[in-house]
Amino acid sequence: DGKSLKMQSPSGDFSFQMGGRIEADFAHYNQDRQKLGDGTDMRRARLYAQGTLYRDWDWKFEYEFADNSTSSTNSKGITDAYLRYKGFAPLLITAGNFKQPFGLEQMMSAHNLTFTERALSQTFVPGRGIGIGVQGSGAHWSLAGAAAGERPEGDVAAEGDEGWNLSARGTFAPFVDPGRVLHFGASAWRHEPQDSGNALRWRSKPESNVTGVFLVDTGQLTGVDDFLASAAEAAGVWGPLSLQAEYMRANLTRAKARDASFDGWYAQASWFLTGETRPYKVADGIFDRVTPKASVGLGGWGAWEVAARLSDVDLTDAGIVGGQQRDLTLALNWYLAPNLRLMLDYVRVLELDRPGNLADDDEPSSLTGRLHVDF
Amino acid sequence: DGKSLKMQSPSGDFSFQMGGRIEADFAHYNQDRQKLGDGTDMRRARLYAQGTLYRDWDWKFEYEFADNSTSSTNSKGITDAYLRYKGFAPLLITAGNFKQPFGLEQMMSAHNLTFTERALSQTFVPGRGIGIGVQGSGAHWSLAGAAAGERPEGDVAAEGDEGWNLSARGTFAPFVDPGRVLHFGASAWRHEPQDSGNALRWRSKPESNVTGVFLVDTGQLTGVDDFLASAAEAAGVWGPLSLQAEYMRANLTRAKARDASFDGWYAQASWFLTGETRPYKVADGIFDRVTPKASVGLGGWGAWEVAARLSDVDLTDAGIVGGQQRDLTLALNWYLAPNLRLMLDYVRVLELDRPGNLADDDEPSSLTGRLHVDF
Amino acid sequence: DGKSLKMQSPSGDFSFQMGGRIEADFAHYNQDRQKLGDGTDMRRARLYAQGTLYRDWDWKFEYEFADNSTSSTNSKGITDAYLRYKGFAPLLITAGNFKQPFGLEQMMSAHNLTFTERALSQTFVPGRGIGIGVQGSGAHWSLAGAAAGERPEGDVAAEGDEGWNLSARGTFAPFVDPGRVLHFGASAWRHEPQDSGNALRWRSKPESNVTGVFLVDTGQLTGVDDFLASAAEAAGVWGPLSLQAEYMRANLTRAKARDASFDGWYAQASWFLTGETRPYKVADGIFDRVTPKASVGLGGWGAWEVAARLSDVDLTDAGIVGGQQRDLTLALNWYLAPNLRLMLDYVRVLELDRPGNLADDDEPSSLTGRLHVDF
Repeated sequence: DGKSLKMQSPSGDFSFQMGGRIEADFAHYNQDRQKLGDGTDMRRARLYAQGTLYRDWDWKFEYEFADNSTSSTNSKGITDAYLRYKGFAPLLITAGNFKQPFGLEQMMSAHNLTFTERALSQTFVPGRGIGIGVQGSGAHWSLAGAAAGERPEGDVAAEGDEGWNLSARGTFAPFVDPGRVLHFGASAWRHEPQDSGNALRWRSKPESNVTGVFLVDTGQLTGVDDFLASAAEAAGVWGPLSLQAEYMRANLTRAKARDASFDGWYAQASWFLTGETRPYKVADGIFDRVTPKASVGLGGWGAWEVAARLSDVDLTDAGIVGGQQRDLTLALNWYLAPNLRLMLDYVRVLELDRPGNLADDDEPSSLTGRLHVDF
Repeated sequence: DGKSLKMQSPSGDFSFQMGGRIEADFAHYNQDRQKLGDGTDMRRARLYAQGTLYRDWDWKFEYEFADNSTSSTNSKGITDAYLRYKGFAPLLITAGNFKQPFGLEQMMSAHNLTFTERALSQTFVPGRGIGIGVQGSGAHWSLAGAAAGERPEGDVAAEGDEGWNLSARGTFAPFVDPGRVLHFGASAWRHEPQDSGNALRWRSKPESNVTGVFLVDTGQLTGVDDFLASAAEAAGVWGPLSLQAEYMRANLTRAKARDASFDGWYAQASWFLTGETRPYKVADGIFDRVTPKASVGLGGWGAWEVAARLSDVDLTDAGIVGGQQRDLTLALNWYLAPNLRLMLDYVRVLELDRPGNLADDDEPSSLTGRLHVDF
Repeated sequence: DGKSLKMQSPSGDFSFQMGGRIEADFAHYNQDRQKLGDGTDMRRARLYAQGTLYRDWDWKFEYEFADNSTSSTNSKGITDAYLRYKGFAPLLITAGNFKQPFGLEQMMSAHNLTFTERALSQTFVPGRGIGIGVQGSGAHWSLAGAAAGERPEGDVAAEGDEGWNLSARGTFAPFVDPGRVLHFGASAWRHEPQDSGNALRWRSKPESNVTGVFLVDTGQLTGVDDFLASAAEAAGVWGPLSLQAEYMRANLTRAKARDASFDGWYAQASWFLTGETRPYKVADGIFDRVTPKASVGLGGWGAWEVAARLSDVDLTDAGIVGGQQRDLTLALNWYLAPNLRLMLDYVRVLELDRPGNLADDDEPSSLTGRLHVDF
């Protein structure tokens, strides 16, 4: 499809492919109590190489060149670096650095998300780690599990042991026809911190990444023995209409303080004015790339989509005042071609309770534009 | 041409190309008052990928892997990361991170520069930024304009707004025949700092990059409301002879101090002993890559060029004592092949006035060698 | 062979090739006196591009994306970035950033090493630098020499001159038949520090890289005028059996303190249970990649190898108490395919003498696993 460079041996046993993406952001903030910082940002700038060796072995290496040091789950560094054995397909075994299975938005590529940023509840997902994963799927379901240490850049106290992670996600989709999808999913993630402070801080930006401000933030929590995060998801597609919602929760066990629990959720609806529908990929239990009926430059005007999202996160419990935030997002997306997209998001903070903090009652709004190209 | 890897779809609507460059430097300093630090350096080490999508969309992603943290306009990070629409050609619309139009040397690739480093006046150019640009050209002219924020690594004070930039450049070339070129150009750049300290420091290295010393330097200037930089350029080619000169100026408006203005210029001449001539690219208003008449390894001795440059910068005004410096540079270039070059520059600081600073009257000279290969 | 992407012009005068490698580690430490930090690590994650220009010019650019900031000879940054002229082959001239010739293990790619980490004596090798090298070879010998400054990331005191290096290595192999190799080699490396503190610290990790602890460490030595390192190597292959040993030594001259000398050595044996033999590359005087007789996925079970190593380093002399350490390593390697390997190393610190330091008498053991894929 000309989308990226791909070379294949005649037998198909060997292949080599390269590609990447560029996402450039612009944001203007209608500030309330704190400065948020208008400006521009390179949100993602990635190159990848991937291929197949000896028919049964897939590998992938991807690097994020954009430096978003203030972003919680995304920063300069190795993203994917793994080897996958598919000799027992549909059972796949993956080893290396990869995304731990948890949640719907998290498992989807940013290529295919409806909004420029994932919802406030994104703070509860495990991200990537070095470890081993297993996944399988059927005609209507998928199941994935992983055991992992920390990312290559894991923030481990000097020579302490790394934290360990166990995570799993299952999905079930009674209908998987184009234009008629119903999807349910559940995930769990258990983390033992060991000597690592990693993953023991929950915080969210106001669903716009140019600013470096996290309006809600628990700070780094100490004395946490372990925690269990869980998530439930449901989504449906009826022609151009798509509905999607997730609920996530984290329960902490602490030796010298009360146990605490945080949660968050979002619910969103989107409509393709030009009649496209979101495709579904049952093997991974996620939504896939939208292809406009008529791309710009090939005689058409691309695909146009409007969307709205309500999202919420509550990081206040048991004496920890991380804050509770609720946002409304309105979005307009123009898909010029399958891999070219212009996005515009208006986010309004509806409510922010964080007593004693500068951010308490801070209710800014933002306008974020994005240029997305992947190749 | 074997220069880099390029794949194209049969229709030409899609393409994918990869390449890069390596520039390794060696420098010896004949020091005067300050240590400059003999040594070696990787000046540039870049890889890029670029391509065409759906006929009308060009994209490019390039990364600089060499870490010249002390260099003013060049350091590790994303260089080009943009999408360009050419459906209205010769009108081109570019969005992403790219070079803002300003000046002749600045708009030329380092592949094609006569000396190892741009002249002292290089401190007045805007560099790259994230924004939108438009350019057009005719048989004898080019015009380009851009509005941009800051680079991905922009140095913005904590959550302050980014500075904004408007820049434009026009060129006119009454003669554009091979071996007979006359070129004129003018540029302007307006910068509003907002909360950013970026671009509010003017400084120059002594036209050799291995050292980390900037002999002239205004330091970081505070309280600048905005500034306007302007530049004029003229160049001509008569067979193997090439003449080129630029003048640049920056005018600062300051709320609580006197307005200031700095300027700089250079004039250079080069002669190809082996008879080559510098090619001109009218659409961008720049000089292009020199191809030796007979490359080494293909039966020839490559192209040999001698050159001289006089350059000057004055960063002292209105109570700011950045210094005034004048340099003479003599160069010998050996083009082994179109993309293989050995360069040798002798730079003599003729004059340096910076009262009260260690660098006052410092008049060192340097010998800088470079190996250049691009692929 | 499908191993990587390679494009060639019909004449063979031009080529372009891309590839890379991923090495993911896991380690568990049976700690004694100090915490060593169990966990996971991305040991190497490299991409390279290389090619040929105008028949006689080879270039290579490789970057290490894995961030092992605590590792002594390996960290994020440019590895190879050079241009090589082969018009006088077998005499090769190399300029740019490349490995300075010294030692057997050091000159071998990590692809082809028997253990996950090089031996304790690895602290005596020069690593990479920017400079010029010459090498030649015959049917039974190789000879290489280089003059170089420091790596692009060289740790030079502010604007001091870089340290300079001269190194050379010669090898002689009376037998070079497959399955019957006898190899001898000798190396020397002279370093003048100038104003640089680089290379004036000797230290070793306990042959497992996940930990950041160096059990032996001289600290940064000041007042060193220059030093001379030398090495002797011997190796032999008899069918599936391979023996290999190296001895290295560094002699320091110090202006205001007694001269000092450190040394180290290792001896190792390996046996291929499945009958493979280590191939030898006489032009570089190193061992090459092992190809399993029957790869996994192509009807076989790959190659299996067991190995043992005794290694020693002594960094205590003339009032410097860097410590003396002796390790025993047992290894099991599974070569699934020529470029896919699983490795498991058990390392036992047999002896550690470092009076007055926390590490004195620290005798931990470690279990390190590695997944290796190169493409």
